[in-house]
Amino acid sequence: MTKKLAMIAFGGNALLRAGEKGTFREQMENVSRTCAQLRHLIERGYNIVIGHGNGPQVGNALLRHEAGRKEFGLPAMPMDFCGAETQGSIAYLIETGMESVASGRKVVSIVTRVEVKADDPAFMNPTKFVGPYYKERPTDGAVYKEDPRGLGWRKVVPSPKPIGINNIDIVEKLSREGNIVVTVGGGGIPVVRTPDGLRGIEAVIDKDLASALAAVTMRADEFYILTDVPKVYINFRKPNQEALDVITVARAKELLAQGQFAEGSMAPKVRAAIMFVEGGGKQCIITEAGELGNPASGTRIIP
Amino acid sequence: MTKKLAMIAFGGNALLRAGEKGTFREQMENVSRTCAQLRHLIERGYNIVIGHGNGPQVGNALLRHEAGRKEFGLPAMPMDFCGAETQGSIAYLIETGMESVASGRKVVSIVTRVEVKADDPAFMNPTKFVGPYYKERPTDGAVYKEDPRGLGWRKVVPSPKPIGINNIDIVEKLSREGNIVVTVGGGGIPVVRTPDGLRGIEAVIDKDLASALAAVTMRADEFYILTDVPKVYINFRKPNQEALDVITVARAKELLAQGQFAEGSMAPKVRAAIMFVEGGGKQCIITEAGELGNPASGTRIIP
Repeated sequence: MTKKLAMIAFGGNALLRAGEKGTFREQMENVSRTCAQLRHLIERGYNIVIGHGNGPQVGNALLRHEAGRKEFGLPAMPMDFCGAETQGSIAYLIETGMESVASGRKVVSIVTRVEVKADDPAFMNPTKFVGPYYKERPTDGAVYKEDPRGLGWRKVVPSPKPIGINNIDIVEKLSREGNIVVTVGGGGIPVVRTPDGLRGIEAVIDKDLASALAAVTMRADEFYILTDVPKVYINFRKPNQEALDVITVARAKELLAQGQFAEGSMAPKVRAAIMFVEGGGKQCIITEAGELGNPASGTRIIP
Repeated sequence: MTKKLAMIAFGGNALLRAGEKGTFREQMENVSRTCAQLRHLIERGYNIVIGHGNGPQVGNALLRHEAGRKEFGLPAMPMDFCGAETQGSIAYLIETGMESVASGRKVVSIVTRVEVKADDPAFMNPTKFVGPYYKERPTDGAVYKEDPRGLGWRKVVPSPKPIGINNIDIVEKLSREGNIVVTVGGGGIPVVRTPDGLRGIEAVIDKDLASALAAVTMRADEFYILTDVPKVYINFRKPNQEALDVITVARAKELLAQGQFAEGSMAPKVRAAIMFVEGGGKQCIITEAGELGNPASGTRIIP
């Protein structure tokens, strides 16, 4: 019998939590705690592919590049390069965190480029603030906007939709051979197709969407989106807040349209869940890492 | 007929050359130029695995981490973490540089941990200067020594011998399936075996030795060490300088013992060549990237 394939998207705070400085020890502890929760899926024999965010880490990388430029005259590298850096470092943390959980399975991390369309409308309207704040608008050719809270000028990059995951066939093969595979870190290194092949571009791809696309392409059976709340809620943080156990894609779309889910938080996760189920997936589970072993846990989005 | 497997070690200056600032464009141009030279091996049908250095890049990473600590209060991460960062970013450059050369083959980059012995004598005597200079000796528990030129205090890390390449079986399999695989970046992320599994440690593994070990373990047919001179020389830069075309392992050992090869430069490459050939490899070729297509090029070290 073919084993089930589960794609799991680690949230940014599975790695570096709000309020933490992000020391090596802090990140290693967070990652180990999250990895420990995969034990249940490993014991149940699932083939496993892990995607992960890099929000806090790539933010720190951009700050370090800016500081290195000021302090040592080093070139500040573009966003795609910094994203690639975090793929290496976070994969290293995850491989280490999986050591005590993997039960003899190998953990393999693939540096992953993710293709976006050069004419994605997101490129006309960059919206994602990244990196350090500047008192004056830098003149390096990148797009800068004033921070809405008046903290200064900040680079804004587009957040285009992923249309293809480079080497996803290799990721799938390795995972179906029983290896635990780490991929699409930070949503992947964004690249566009040019006459000279795939070329990097400054952008941020939503990591849940990239993981969903990976899951669909591999025909994964289940897609887990790990976050910091146990379930998806409607009327979140209001007196009539209600946890959702199971919702259909149609219902999820209705609730999205009603604005029930916050942008930059639950809304992209619900969109990723819809993408997966509409792409043929059986179910997407949005939940806390700590709830992974509990069959009644989380919110299941089904066809 | 089984295709030949070639392991190729890119030198640091294949990526970032002395005197360059290391902008994205400079590094991309260097990498593309080096990758273009692999065309000959690709056309001859070789299976290919690429290892690479990270000296200038991890040096810059350590400076950026130090600057980020001073400027933004970010934690400066350990050497192993910074090495993992460079595996991600350099792999991204190599994948991009291979786009126009790979002839339809896939390029796959594996984040790679390399095992060293916790009781390697190198840990008793750290010798490798890394990262920024400090006016006063830092008190963070790491080992610092005064720079011999009086430039200040600098972290010194050990350079232990690699004893095992994590996931090398997967690297070999992928390459024998026709993919071009990037691995052991910067000599690999150094790890030691503990009761809790493999754990990172601050050290630098020589990238030529790590590539040699990878080549031996995969039973590679040929091992190419790319450097910035066309051949290995005796009496280097003296009036009686002599280029070597072919030498046996026995002769290479003699010349090493005579001090013919500079430490930190040609000596580790010759040691890596010896390790490969003594481990069963047919020949190791030390040469310039630009000479790769020329059958008479470089110095061949043979049994």
